[in-house]
Amino acid sequence: MWNFHNPVSIHAGAGSLRSLPAILEGRDCLLVTFPEARALGVVDRVRGLVGERLRGVIDEVEPNPDVQWLAPLYERVHAQWANVPCLVAVGGGSVIDTAKALMCATASGGFAELLDALADGAALPPGLHKTLIAVPTTAGTGSEVTPWATIWDQAAGRKHSLHQPWTWPQAAIIDPDLMLSLPASATLASGLDALSHALEAIWNVNRNPVSTTLAAGAARRILRVLPLLMQRLGDVALRDEMAQAALMAGLAFSNTKTALAHSLSYELTLRHGLAHGIACSFSLPLVLKMALGRDGETDAVLLGIFDADTGEAAVLRLRNFLHGLGVATDPADYGVSAPMWAAMVESASQGPRGRNFIRALA
Amino acid sequence: MWNFHNPVSIHAGAGSLRSLPAILEGRDCLLVTFPEARALGVVDRVRGLVGERLRGVIDEVEPNPDVQWLAPLYERVHAQWANVPCLVAVGGGSVIDTAKALMCATASGGFAELLDALADGAALPPGLHKTLIAVPTTAGTGSEVTPWATIWDQAAGRKHSLHQPWTWPQAAIIDPDLMLSLPASATLASGLDALSHALEAIWNVNRNPVSTTLAAGAARRILRVLPLLMQRLGDVALRDEMAQAALMAGLAFSNTKTALAHSLSYELTLRHGLAHGIACSFSLPLVLKMALGRDGETDAVLLGIFDADTGEAAVLRLRNFLHGLGVATDPADYGVSAPMWAAMVESASQGPRGRNFIRALA
Repeated sequence: MWNFHNPVSIHAGAGSLRSLPAILEGRDCLLVTFPEARALGVVDRVRGLVGERLRGVIDEVEPNPDVQWLAPLYERVHAQWANVPCLVAVGGGSVIDTAKALMCATASGGFAELLDALADGAALPPGLHKTLIAVPTTAGTGSEVTPWATIWDQAAGRKHSLHQPWTWPQAAIIDPDLMLSLPASATLASGLDALSHALEAIWNVNRNPVSTTLAAGAARRILRVLPLLMQRLGDVALRDEMAQAALMAGLAFSNTKTALAHSLSYELTLRHGLAHGIACSFSLPLVLKMALGRDGETDAVLLGIFDADTGEAAVLRLRNFLHGLGVATDPADYGVSAPMWAAMVESASQGPRGRNFIRALA
Repeated sequence: MWNFHNPVSIHAGAGSLRSLPAILEGRDCLLVTFPEARALGVVDRVRGLVGERLRGVIDEVEPNPDVQWLAPLYERVHAQWANVPCLVAVGGGSVIDTAKALMCATASGGFAELLDALADGAALPPGLHKTLIAVPTTAGTGSEVTPWATIWDQAAGRKHSLHQPWTWPQAAIIDPDLMLSLPASATLASGLDALSHALEAIWNVNRNPVSTTLAAGAARRILRVLPLLMQRLGDVALRDEMAQAALMAGLAFSNTKTALAHSLSYELTLRHGLAHGIACSFSLPLVLKMALGRDGETDAVLLGIFDADTGEAAVLRLRNFLHGLGVATDPADYGVSAPMWAAMVESASQGPRGRNFIRALA
C-alpha cells in the first residue's frame, strides 16, 4: 500500500512570476529573500506586481539557516508583522526553508517553542500559521513543493527537520527568468541536488508508481540538460527545462523523502562545510551500485534512466556524467579514507533518511 | 506558462480500502454505490470498517447519470441527510460522478438550482458542500482525481460538465481488490478510457511536463498490461498495475482535460449508446495520425510510447493493439460513413474538448 499527496498549486514557465497577484487574491505579504535580491531587481519586481500589499522585506537570509541566527529574526517578524497573512519566499532552499520556519506561529510568539517542536517533532498550533508562496531562484532544492525545512544547529552539531501538516506552500511559482543570474557553482550544486532527489526517490522504501514515474522523467532530463546548461547559463529555455526537472524531482521526493546519499551528506556539510548539492551527489555512483540488484522493477527503471544494459554500465555513465561536470566521485577526494567511508555508510544507513534506502526483497 | 494542481490525497494498493476510517476521522458518511454492490459484499465491507458512521446507503446509481433520474435522488439526499458531511462513492465513473452532483449543496436544497449551474457553469454556494471520498471499482475513468462530473440530459440530447472549485475528492482509495469482480467488457471499456485519457493529455494544448510525464508512463503501462489482464481478470497484481496506470492517466488529464477523441465520442454515446470507453478509444489511431507532426517534442513522446521510429509505425502499433482486444477502429464499423466521419471530426474540433487538441506551431 502506498500514498501520494501534493497539494501545492504549481505555476510555471518564463514570466510566471506575474501570477503572484492572482495567487495572493488581495492578501498582504512579506517578501523573504536573499541579500543580493535587491541589487538584482527582484524586490522591485515583486513590489511592482503587488504594490502596497507588500508590507515588509526580509532580505538578510543566510545560507543553511541556523537556529542562532533564526531566533531573533523569528521574534522580530512575529512581533512586527503578526497580522500579515502571507509570506512570499523568493530564493534558493535556504530562503524557502527560512520562510517555512517563519510561517509557523507559536502561542507566545517566541522562538523557544518552535525550537522545542523542531527538536522533538511536536505539533504546533495549526490555526495561527501564515501562508507560504514559494518562488525558487535555483533549480534544485524542491523545497517549493515539500512541507519540510532543514534548520541547522551548528553549535550542537546537528540538523533539524521542520515538518507540520500545514507547512506545504499554497503555491509554487517556477519562473526560469529568475534563475538566469544564478552563478555556475550554484547552478551546478542545485542541479545535482535535484538529480539526487530524483534517484533517491527511486531507490527508496517509500517509492510508488507516481513518484517513480516523475523521478525517472526528472533524472533523464537532468542528465541531458545540466551539461548543456553549464555551457550556456543565460539560455532561458535550458533554465526552464532544468527547472521543470527539478520540480518533478521535488514532487517525487515530496512523497518518499530522501535516502542514503542525503544521509551521507549531512556529516560532510556539518563537519567540512561541503555545499549540500555536492555533498548529496558525489556519492551517487557508489549508492547506485548498492541499490542495484535489490528489486527487479527498480533495477529496470534505473537502467532505463542511464540507457544501460548492465548495472556496471549505469554506474559508469553516472560517474562519467559527474566527472564531466568537474565533480569528483571518490570519497578520498573529499578527505574521507576508505575505512572512514565504510564507517560513514554504516552510520548513515541507520539515520532516518538512510533507513529509507531500498531493501532487498526477503 | 502552465499550471499543475491536484490536491487529492491518494491511498493505493491491495487492501487500501482499510484506510477509509482514518480518512473519515470520525465523520459520518453516506455510501453511494451501484446496485450489485450489496450482493458483492461491498456494502458490508464498508459498514464493517466504519460502523455506525455509515448513515445511509444509496445503491441505485444508474450508468451515465441523467438529470431526470438525478433530480429526485438529489432532493431526497439533501432532505434526509442534510447534516451528513461525507460521501463515500464506491463504483465506476457513473457512481463517482453522481456523488459529485450530490456533494453540491444549493441554497434551497432543490435540484433546479444545480441544473441551472450545470447549464451555465454558474458558481454554487461553496461553504455548504459535502466532502467526497472516491473509491473506484474500475480502472479507467480517473474521476477519483478530477473535479469534474459528466451529467447527461438525454431528453435534450446534450451532456453537462459539472465543475466547481471544491468538487475535487478529498481522498481517492485505489484498491485493486475491489476491481477483481469487474466483468471483461467493463474492464476493457474502462481500460481503454484510461488509455484515451493518457493520449489526450499528451496531444493537448494544455499539456505540461508533469502531465506529459505521467501520461506517457500511464500509456506505456496500459499497452503492456491491458492485454495480459484481459486474459487473467482475477490476477490482483495485473489489476493493481492497471489501476496505477489509470490513476496516472487521471492525474495527467485532471490538468489538461481531454481532447478530440473524447469530443468525437459524445455524439456516438448519445445517439448510438456506444459505451464511453469504446466511443473514446476506437478513434485513437485516427486521432494519433492527426496529432503527429504538429510539435516535435510531443511527436518524440508519442513515438516513445509505441517504441516506434515513424508515425506510421506508431499508428499501426496502436491499431493492432485495439484490434488485438477486439475493438474495431474504422468508423464504418460503428455505422459512420466516411463523409459522416469527416463532418463529425469537423464538428468535434469546434467543441470545448476538441479545441484542446494540439495545434501546429505557427
